Amino acid sequence: MKKMNYQNVKGTQDYLPSAEIIRRNIRRTLEDVFILYGCKPLETPILNYTELLASKYGGGSEILEEMYTLTDRGERELALRYDLTIPFAKVVAMNPSIKMPFKRYEIGKVFRDGPIKTGRFREFTQCDVDIVGVESQIAEAELMKMALDAFNKLSLKVKIQFNNRKLLSGMLEVFETSAEQINKVVLILDKIEKVGLEAVIRELEELGLSVSTIGSIQKFLGDKGNTSFNYYEPFAEKNGQVKQGLEELKELISYLDFLEINHECVFNPFLARGLEIYTGTIYEIFLVDPIIKSSIGSGGRYDNAIGGLIGTNQKFSTVGISFGLDVIYTAVEKTMETSSVHSYLDYYVIPINTLIESLLVANFFREKGYRVELELGNKKLRKALDKANIENIRNVIIVGENEVKNNYFKIKDMFTGEEKKESFQFYK
Amino acid sequence: MKKMNYQNVKGTQDYLPSAEIIRRNIRRTLEDVFILYGCKPLETPILNYTELLASKYGGGSEILEEMYTLTDRGERELALRYDLTIPFAKVVAMNPSIKMPFKRYEIGKVFRDGPIKTGRFREFTQCDVDIVGVESQIAEAELMKMALDAFNKLSLKVKIQFNNRKLLSGMLEVFETSAEQINKVVLILDKIEKVGLEAVIRELEELGLSVSTIGSIQKFLGDKGNTSFNYYEPFAEKNGQVKQGLEELKELISYLDFLEINHECVFNPFLARGLEIYTGTIYEIFLVDPIIKSSIGSGGRYDNAIGGLIGTNQKFSTVGISFGLDVIYTAVEKTMETSSVHSYLDYYVIPINTLIESLLVANFFREKGYRVELELGNKKLRKALDKANIENIRNVIIVGENEVKNNYFKIKDMFTGEEKKESFQFYK
Repeated sequence: MKKMNYQNVKGTQDYLPSAEIIRRNIRRTLEDVFILYGCKPLETPILNYTELLASKYGGGSEILEEMYTLTDRGERELALRYDLTIPFAKVVAMNPSIKMPFKRYEIGKVFRDGPIKTGRFREFTQCDVDIVGVESQIAEAELMKMALDAFNKLSLKVKIQFNNRKLLSGMLEVFETSAEQINKVVLILDKIEKVGLEAVIRELEELGLSVSTIGSIQKFLGDKGNTSFNYYEPFAEKNGQVKQGLEELKELISYLDFLEINHECVFNPFLARGLEIYTGTIYEIFLVDPIIKSSIGSGGRYDNAIGGLIGTNQKFSTVGISFGLDVIYTAVEKTMETSSVHSYLDYYVIPINTLIESLLVANFFREKGYRVELELGNKKLRKALDKANIENIRNVIIVGENEVKNNYFKIKDMFTGEEKKESFQFYK
Repeated sequence: MKKMNYQNVKGTQDYLPSAEIIRRNIRRTLEDVFILYGCKPLETPILNYTELLASKYGGGSEILEEMYTLTDRGERELALRYDLTIPFAKVVAMNPSIKMPFKRYEIGKVFRDGPIKTGRFREFTQCDVDIVGVESQIAEAELMKMALDAFNKLSLKVKIQFNNRKLLSGMLEVFETSAEQINKVVLILDKIEKVGLEAVIRELEELGLSVSTIGSIQKFLGDKGNTSFNYYEPFAEKNGQVKQGLEELKELISYLDFLEINHECVFNPFLARGLEIYTGTIYEIFLVDPIIKSSIGSGGRYDNAIGGLIGTNQKFSTVGISFGLDVIYTAVEKTMETSSVHSYLDYYVIPINTLIESLLVANFFREKGYRVELELGNKKLRKALDKANIENIRNVIIVGENEVKNNYFKIKDMFTGEEKKESFQFYK
């Protein structure tokens, strides 16, 4: 017979049970927290019209290069979604009867045919919450608190860095950066923690900024006072964007203080976020423990995307947050203590020539809500006990022929070695 | 501004919250029952090599015509998976260290670029359980019991029809159907409930079967005794396949009797299932209430697929069952009483110029595990109460300025109209 090529496609992978059990718990924890916050579930298709996904209100040119495209039998030009934001905007656009504010979550696969680095895949799962129809910074505060709750339930210590795009753009205006260069400069500043100050300055020079603008930016970047709001007051008097950004930040801070989460939330004036769609508050979530340096969640306010997509001048105030399942999985897996790895089972039933009677015992416990595996593979007792040890299963039920005759079975605690008899009516 | 084409692609759809809340419950109910039965989760990629999915051990020629194909930036020939069975077989093939028996479930999207009929989509969700490594019919019995448990939890009354491919093929051998025609005849017989006896006979004639073979098949189809095992005993003496099929059926029945599910499981000697891969027991699940006539779950034994895929002569005894989320959703939605539609919320908090204090109240209840929506849209009290009525939210919390000053809030029961005061320390 011909041997089949049954590899996985580059950038994709299987999640075997040991990993997937953890991933399932993360997914459920996130979803349960989203539900606690009154978020409603939405499910959108993976297949979309290329035209929709290529909209300039979408992921930007870098992402568009990474789109998987295809045609269907009707010769339609289709693409696989690369995020959950554009599909969300599409749903709001298609359903004018949706009541505002609308708070939805979606957990689903997205696809990017990009370069493969450690921890980056071409097919991966995003977990997104977005709120449309709230102008106040209370929306941001709720999402930040929700993120902290979620990571707390996952036993991950995190810090949230936040900033405001208006503040940053406004400061660049003050430094006489031209309008068409502001977004590019923002994207360069976003990389400062990764590449360092020198590389940032070099990139700004390559962009052709004037010496005085670069000098002002460099001074701003190096100033220790720049994390205090007072630092921006004099600029706010000169520039409307700085003023508005500062007001929004102060409003946000008032909620964070009141919720007593101001220690976990840190103002970072150079945080920019790569995507161009953001218009106000932006935030990124990092592990306190530096085992993973990249962010494990992020988002912000993007007030223009939905209106732009619909093609009206109507304003749709929108704030979102996105969690990457893969990076969170890596974090959970790295911080998990071995002792906390629980079995996926409550009972493992081992028949010894008593398959049919063991089926009854298994069902008896399942009806009580216990997770039960019945050994179906005809394993000898010793082999079955080995399996219980390897898979960390604590409670093993042994159903022997003699036991069945005398209407009982044995429960063995694999951790202590104790055995006890349990009476059971096998035949009525 | 240009108006964007933001329709959904033909054959795909959005699931808005009212539908998705029900779908989420179905998905979780199925998953929880799978877990009770000791099934382990597996997640496989949607993107696969075309060569793998086009294997003859896959879905058969009809499905292959419906594959979505594409190429990635490495010019690889890829396709979107059309089921979860081939990806499962691939995982078993790729991971020889997996311990047998291996019982896994996967819930995920699959894609078929086929004709659109009512209730059929091009992008849809399957929920599959498969067991590899068990020769005994105990595997089938467990899956059938598991399916009954799942539908019971979903309050759907179902019957399972079952048959055995060996029995059916053996009977066709007895009737002197040629080896290369048996599979084709099986596929034709599978349609008898849909198209009727006459149409089936006509198709058999078109296939070029002999008059005597067609006569024998027709007699078999019309015989009232054909649902009794005794009917097959004389044929079993003449034909090895009938003999083995009959033995397997008797073994299966012994388990179903013992589990006391023999009333929900009905032997149907003409059940064939479309797919060619099945080698033994097959089953299909139908609603007792004929609101939906098509099956809402199905599966069977396919002992040759994994070995075939790996290209060895090693035998991998495999049994599977598959649930279609969309058809189950339709069934649940149709049988659901309006009174049983619960809100997605436990509390809805309405601030009246008390946004910041209301945030505290919302968090107080969330920390206790309640699902809480805080009104973020600055709605007037009357509008907010309207929303509560429309969305069937029972408990509304009203936080007024006066209440905050006096350290209490009001809880209103929207069903009875009752209001009560609850004391609450807003400031420490």
